[in-house]
Amino acid sequence: MTTLLAVVPTFIARLWTEPLAQYAPWLKVVIHGQDDYKPEEIDYALGFRPPPGLFKTLPNVKVIFSLGAGVDGFLSDKDFPKQIPLVRFVDHTLSREMMQYVVLHTLMFHRTQRQFDRAQAQKQWAQMFPPRRTEDTRVGILGLGEIGTMAGEYLARLDFPVSGWSRTKKSVPDIKSFAGDGELEAFLGQSDILVCLLPLTPATYHILNKKTFAQLPKGAYVINAARGGHLVEDDLIAAIDSGHLAGATLDVFETEPLPATSPIWTHPKITMTPHVAAMTDPRVASRTVADAIAGHMKGAKLDNVVDFELGY
Amino acid sequence: MTTLLAVVPTFIARLWTEPLAQYAPWLKVVIHGQDDYKPEEIDYALGFRPPPGLFKTLPNVKVIFSLGAGVDGFLSDKDFPKQIPLVRFVDHTLSREMMQYVVLHTLMFHRTQRQFDRAQAQKQWAQMFPPRRTEDTRVGILGLGEIGTMAGEYLARLDFPVSGWSRTKKSVPDIKSFAGDGELEAFLGQSDILVCLLPLTPATYHILNKKTFAQLPKGAYVINAARGGHLVEDDLIAAIDSGHLAGATLDVFETEPLPATSPIWTHPKITMTPHVAAMTDPRVASRTVADAIAGHMKGAKLDNVVDFELGY
Repeated sequence: MTTLLAVVPTFIARLWTEPLAQYAPWLKVVIHGQDDYKPEEIDYALGFRPPPGLFKTLPNVKVIFSLGAGVDGFLSDKDFPKQIPLVRFVDHTLSREMMQYVVLHTLMFHRTQRQFDRAQAQKQWAQMFPPRRTEDTRVGILGLGEIGTMAGEYLARLDFPVSGWSRTKKSVPDIKSFAGDGELEAFLGQSDILVCLLPLTPATYHILNKKTFAQLPKGAYVINAARGGHLVEDDLIAAIDSGHLAGATLDVFETEPLPATSPIWTHPKITMTPHVAAMTDPRVASRTVADAIAGHMKGAKLDNVVDFELGY
Repeated sequence: MTTLLAVVPTFIARLWTEPLAQYAPWLKVVIHGQDDYKPEEIDYALGFRPPPGLFKTLPNVKVIFSLGAGVDGFLSDKDFPKQIPLVRFVDHTLSREMMQYVVLHTLMFHRTQRQFDRAQAQKQWAQMFPPRRTEDTRVGILGLGEIGTMAGEYLARLDFPVSGWSRTKKSVPDIKSFAGDGELEAFLGQSDILVCLLPLTPATYHILNKKTFAQLPKGAYVINAARGGHLVEDDLIAAIDSGHLAGATLDVFETEPLPATSPIWTHPKITMTPHVAAMTDPRVASRTVADAIAGHMKGAKLDNVVDFELGY
């Protein structure tokens, strides 16, 4: 029997085993840390943040599936068996969740919802025009993959001028493309709202730093929905407190859960959410993975295989 | 010389006179309550909430322009000269602002942003899935005019199932159409998020009432971005406090500014904003009105003329 090892928190294991049992009864599912299994019986594996060294102990594993769009949690495993294909989770539902998050927080800033929240708390009727017209509020998206493109296209339909920055030039209607290190400064200089949706790789680690913030226009807003490792948190707070940046929305942090001592919790110009921008839904992902396994067993080509050199 | 009477608050008169002087120098603009003028010299008039009885004193006025999409502030004038065409302000910018507001508050509820706000204030890392999948969160829009259609189309692109209710049946891709009193209950019964964008007329006055709320599914959310007269505020609060409704976002109120004594200010499940969902931008509207006047002087047909029977 074909056996799948699920490396998921045991308290949510049922969320994976139940839909898999129903949708793919031909697949034996074992839960890491809960079920006994022999390393050699594992044919496929799925996980989000697997313990380092685990995958190299599986001699017969054929494909490893990431449950997130980002695979930095796998690549940080020095012993990851790079001869085994690693598949990123690319799914319309996940991309759509991320797009909703980006649209929500772009509009909360653009439409000054936090000012209205404060006015309500103070019982003040404070009518005001949005300080900047939509047509003059330039959104810059770091990372023009599946998710960044989808978010950019949607924001363009709301009339925001949208640009994107990526490793290679992209051609997407309504999104101005900037590419490579040489065009980063020009891209930043025209981004009133900067949205980070990059994969976390050695090349993008700490890309949101003091120098980056200084290159943004005064009054810019930062949204990080990618990985905590992209951001130098102290640099962000300094750039906000100096008045150069208007504020930020953060979904991801260098350390998660965010430590109670972090000044981010109470910063009046930072909205933080606990890594919820796009959560992989087991009901959806279990089918995606089962279909990919069935296809692979029949010899079909795998989609979304990670390039270990690029890191995504 | 062609003379336009602007019935606007005098402290913002400059926002109107300056762009009009630049864009339409052939037009003489007088501000009601600030400039002296003879009633018989007025050819055209614009305003938002004109004092009752004013327009009947203008013997030569040819067209009256509303600065808002809703014209209830004109129709409540018992002496309004109904032989004079009244033109509603229909403008992409205004519709787009309203659409942004509806998208913002739909997503704030759907993505449980208020729970995340509270968790941040308490320094709690509270990860959770959205309680309902987007595909299962049905948005019902009361009023499928220009603005309601645009908002519905955008929400459908975020994967919400969208329906609309209007006086007559509409055919809009991706929006299920319900029409007339006979289909109101069926429409409400399948609206998890109810958005009111209706014109305020005798037929829609207090349409958001106890009976309406009882017909919504348990846990429904209400967004009123139309007019305060649509809503029985006490009925809304009772429906929320009973646990039947999850909450509401209100931009408009029976009395504006909202009185300090209103329980709406401090209700933990109500987000209130001070009638800012879509504010007519003088820089845009002055051109729209000047163009319409120039067209009318050349004999062109007026667009968006109000039907006094229907009230919009």
